[in-house]
Amino acid sequence: MSTDAQLAIGLDIGGTKIAGGVVDRTGRVYAELQAPTPPRSGAIVIASILLDLVARLREGRDIAAVGVGAAGIVRWPEGRMLWAPNNAYRDWDIRDELERETGLPAVVDNDANVAGFAEARLGTIPHRQMLFVTVGTGIGGGLVLDGEIYRGPTGMGAELGHMIVDPLGPRCGCGNHGCLEAVASGSALSRMGREAAAADPDGVIARIGRSEGAVTGHTVTTAAQQDDPTALDIFNRLGRWLGIGIASLATIFELEAVVIGGGVVRTGDLLLTPVRAAAREYAYAPEARGVPPVTPATFGSEAGMIGAGLLALEHTDRKPSST
Amino acid sequence: MSTDAQLAIGLDIGGTKIAGGVVDRTGRVYAELQAPTPPRSGAIVIASILLDLVARLREGRDIAAVGVGAAGIVRWPEGRMLWAPNNAYRDWDIRDELERETGLPAVVDNDANVAGFAEARLGTIPHRQMLFVTVGTGIGGGLVLDGEIYRGPTGMGAELGHMIVDPLGPRCGCGNHGCLEAVASGSALSRMGREAAAADPDGVIARIGRSEGAVTGHTVTTAAQQDDPTALDIFNRLGRWLGIGIASLATIFELEAVVIGGGVVRTGDLLLTPVRAAAREYAYAPEARGVPPVTPATFGSEAGMIGAGLLALEHTDRKPSST
Repeated sequence: MSTDAQLAIGLDIGGTKIAGGVVDRTGRVYAELQAPTPPRSGAIVIASILLDLVARLREGRDIAAVGVGAAGIVRWPEGRMLWAPNNAYRDWDIRDELERETGLPAVVDNDANVAGFAEARLGTIPHRQMLFVTVGTGIGGGLVLDGEIYRGPTGMGAELGHMIVDPLGPRCGCGNHGCLEAVASGSALSRMGREAAAADPDGVIARIGRSEGAVTGHTVTTAAQQDDPTALDIFNRLGRWLGIGIASLATIFELEAVVIGGGVVRTGDLLLTPVRAAAREYAYAPEARGVPPVTPATFGSEAGMIGAGLLALEHTDRKPSST
Repeated sequence: MSTDAQLAIGLDIGGTKIAGGVVDRTGRVYAELQAPTPPRSGAIVIASILLDLVARLREGRDIAAVGVGAAGIVRWPEGRMLWAPNNAYRDWDIRDELERETGLPAVVDNDANVAGFAEARLGTIPHRQMLFVTVGTGIGGGLVLDGEIYRGPTGMGAELGHMIVDPLGPRCGCGNHGCLEAVASGSALSRMGREAAAADPDGVIARIGRSEGAVTGHTVTTAAQQDDPTALDIFNRLGRWLGIGIASLATIFELEAVVIGGGVVRTGDLLLTPVRAAAREYAYAPEARGVPPVTPATFGSEAGMIGAGLLALEHTDRKPSST
């Protein structure tokens, strides 16, 4: 059976919460549950949360497959979590464990990949050739090329947050210098805010930071919304780096569209205006090749869950499980 | 018929010469001819040269297809030349013209694409997931992903010479700032040599330049081979930029290998040592993901011709011509 009525459970393992939902191929969400992610937890703890969510979401429903999106490096198609930024598990055969315990076919992929897949297939404007960038604490990338998620031969590709845009720039969490994530993420926003507050302790950012208890990305956003020139300059620099990275990726891939998700895009034009300006400024041969539009994501925090469920349904069609 | 015995004519339209050869699927070259490229020539002149080469190479042989590699932006699969750096033609239906005039099925693609295809399929070590970079006057890129040339939906992708590696860096011929081509090409080598000669008119580079009549990439190479520290520093900077670009592309694509062709790679370790060092230094999570080897190309100036012929034979298998 392969119809729009088929249902999957999509799971999204994030740094603070695990979201699970029952979804169909159109992106409709029939039920949704959440659980907090215990900090630095390992495979046994996370597996028991995932299985509990699946059991509760499955009750009274005919579920065809399970899909998982998870932050980290996931080997594809095996669905093995090699490494995760926020969790203690390493080299965990999460797909096999889910299939064994649930009796359902399962897929496991990187969280930005499945969120990008949801945006490409089910976003306001569907795209077959799209770059999805999540700008949150870090930067995640999902590439959809010719209608399919691009992962590289074993799932190690599309680590777009770690392309180098500023080789002499600040150190990234990964140890490199000048990664896109080091200069254009929510963490970079916080760092630039702290630097600005230290440089001008009487400035708007420092003042708001004191009232909030610490200078964070939120502090810079509040200051920018009050037209503080220092905060606006930080957003311009952040957005400019992101736009430069997007310009390179458009030159490499010939993109139809760029979609930006993640927490920082909720600042709207504060981020998007400089991103669009730099993506155009650094575009290669824009008269001949065009410049892809840069738009905010259709789905918010549900993108990963919906994309994971959609991917599970599509994958089940292609390769029937042995169960 | 689809056998190793099938022959194609491969043509490579370069800035100074047009090379044509009769090749088979194994890369064997049965005959070869060359003609100079008349400077800034248009479609009529180039077409007559191509047709003359085809007629002479075809004599007494059963030719199955014609393939062309050409510098510039080529629409795929239509084989329409949209723009070329060294020739006056624009928006030229070169594939249709060749098919009409020769009665043979034809393919036309970017020169670095077909050269990379030859390296991936027929190089000393074949690869299914490979980056090919030509470092000549400019920088050309050919990407082979999952065994096939990656071009983007219409052939506009893989313009790797124009990814941005140094956003505040020198102006590129394309008008942008800090393209890989602006800092890591043969032209960049010449520019850095001229700058060094101007800064130190008594230095080795300036002296060799005067004896050669001008400071070129060749001047810097000669000085470096004499262990001139300024020239060695120029090669280190050039190679470092190329290595940074390669590191980003490895992070994006999960590459098995990186192959470098073009005139500048003939300097050997002068270029390759700093390239390899920077590609490793800027690699993302090298312990988990590995670092692809960087090796010089197997084929020299014949790569484009061989790759164009190979592509023509493979394409003919898939989509029989109506002729």
